[in-house]
Amino acid sequence: MVIGYKLYIEQAEPWLSERTKRVSSVMTEEIKRAEEALETAVNTGGRIAIVSGGDPGLYAMAGVVYELAASKKIPLGKGKGKLRIRVIPGTPALVAGAALLGAPITHDFCTISLSDRLTEWDLIKKRLILASQSDFVIVIYNPKSYGRTWQLGEAKMLLLDNLKVTTPVGICSKLGRHGEKARIVTLRELEPDDIDMQTILIVGNSTTFVYDGCMITPRGYVKKYGPGRPHQGEDDGEPDEA
Amino acid sequence: MVIGYKLYIEQAEPWLSERTKRVSSVMTEEIKRAEEALETAVNTGGRIAIVSGGDPGLYAMAGVVYELAASKKIPLGKGKGKLRIRVIPGTPALVAGAALLGAPITHDFCTISLSDRLTEWDLIKKRLILASQSDFVIVIYNPKSYGRTWQLGEAKMLLLDNLKVTTPVGICSKLGRHGEKARIVTLRELEPDDIDMQTILIVGNSTTFVYDGCMITPRGYVKKYGPGRPHQGEDDGEPDEA
Repeated sequence: MVIGYKLYIEQAEPWLSERTKRVSSVMTEEIKRAEEALETAVNTGGRIAIVSGGDPGLYAMAGVVYELAASKKIPLGKGKGKLRIRVIPGTPALVAGAALLGAPITHDFCTISLSDRLTEWDLIKKRLILASQSDFVIVIYNPKSYGRTWQLGEAKMLLLDNLKVTTPVGICSKLGRHGEKARIVTLRELEPDDIDMQTILIVGNSTTFVYDGCMITPRGYVKKYGPGRPHQGEDDGEPDEA
Repeated sequence: MVIGYKLYIEQAEPWLSERTKRVSSVMTEEIKRAEEALETAVNTGGRIAIVSGGDPGLYAMAGVVYELAASKKIPLGKGKGKLRIRVIPGTPALVAGAALLGAPITHDFCTISLSDRLTEWDLIKKRLILASQSDFVIVIYNPKSYGRTWQLGEAKMLLLDNLKVTTPVGICSKLGRHGEKARIVTLRELEPDDIDMQTILIVGNSTTFVYDGCMITPRGYVKKYGPGRPHQGEDDGEPDEA
């Protein structure tokens, strides 16, 4: 059985067998979806796949499935009488968006969802303030929705308290879907009214710049190892991440 | 031509044609690698692939390539005389590690590299302090290396100033490679001496818990919509991310 939001089931169709049962649900029913999947797995012992957008572990279904399994005290793990949950990692929207924009993240960053359905606005606000004081690149999820429209404007004001008005902001829409696009504005130019719910924003740090339409956050390689500087690898014995 | 750190070229072998030229380099030579790729592309007009681990945009090669192209003023974009750079997004270590542990991230998080080769330790320290005050899940990259051993111990002390000693910490090694593994300890139990450079750490937030060997950061669905609570979707009109 495959269960998920309608759009994701449709996207998964090419890989599904005819015999596989499809159960699609609407956007707001994550908990019902997780409940149905867990109950079916426990009662039938069958294999259930929950499809999710981006990576299932970030702002998606893995969390609610585990949260519910724990609250129902379903024994997890391998072996008889236990339920085995496996999360298959994917490509999160934040890296898909970054790839379209150039290399805006590259180093320390944070993600903040502006949805105050499950998180108090005061905590979201605190995170926005401390993140901008930390000089993180800031990825904003859920900037808006049909019923929630003022948070992005307030977030912009909070960020402007610590960031330059010229800070580049990447705006990425419909990532991984038909009509996917990305554009770059400055924080001052960011117009909350133009942003919709299928969008994530990537706000640069103090060093981020735009070159030939690409948003780039330098790691500092060129500054440290550029022309006339020591050859990389000679001044330390340390490998880097790449 | 395919260029990259030796280990990644070996991993890419099954997808490479016999005719493709392989150029492998050592770990510390990111800038030399990027320079060679850019020069070859500009001079020959050929297609060059730089292979990178995880996602190329996070702590990996996309940043240094763009940084170098900008510093050399190579015109970027489509069309004659321009160089077209495309970043192919991938699965970052942080989501691969999270998937092995359970659902430890699920919501707002940040990543902090403890490497002070290109970033001042004072800034890293500030980020650790503010991140723990923000109640972010904190993903730690580059906890150690051969030549850099004291940073993780100091990071642990800084985190303990704001986090509970019982905060779960996921320790993930060799992600996506042979011998991949994950285990969970508490922040108090975290033993910097046992951590090596092929490891990332995921430090939970104030709500993260361990259930049946799985590390879980709840989003709050069960608290808000669990038994006896309003049915999800009835009390608001807003879709969520999943």
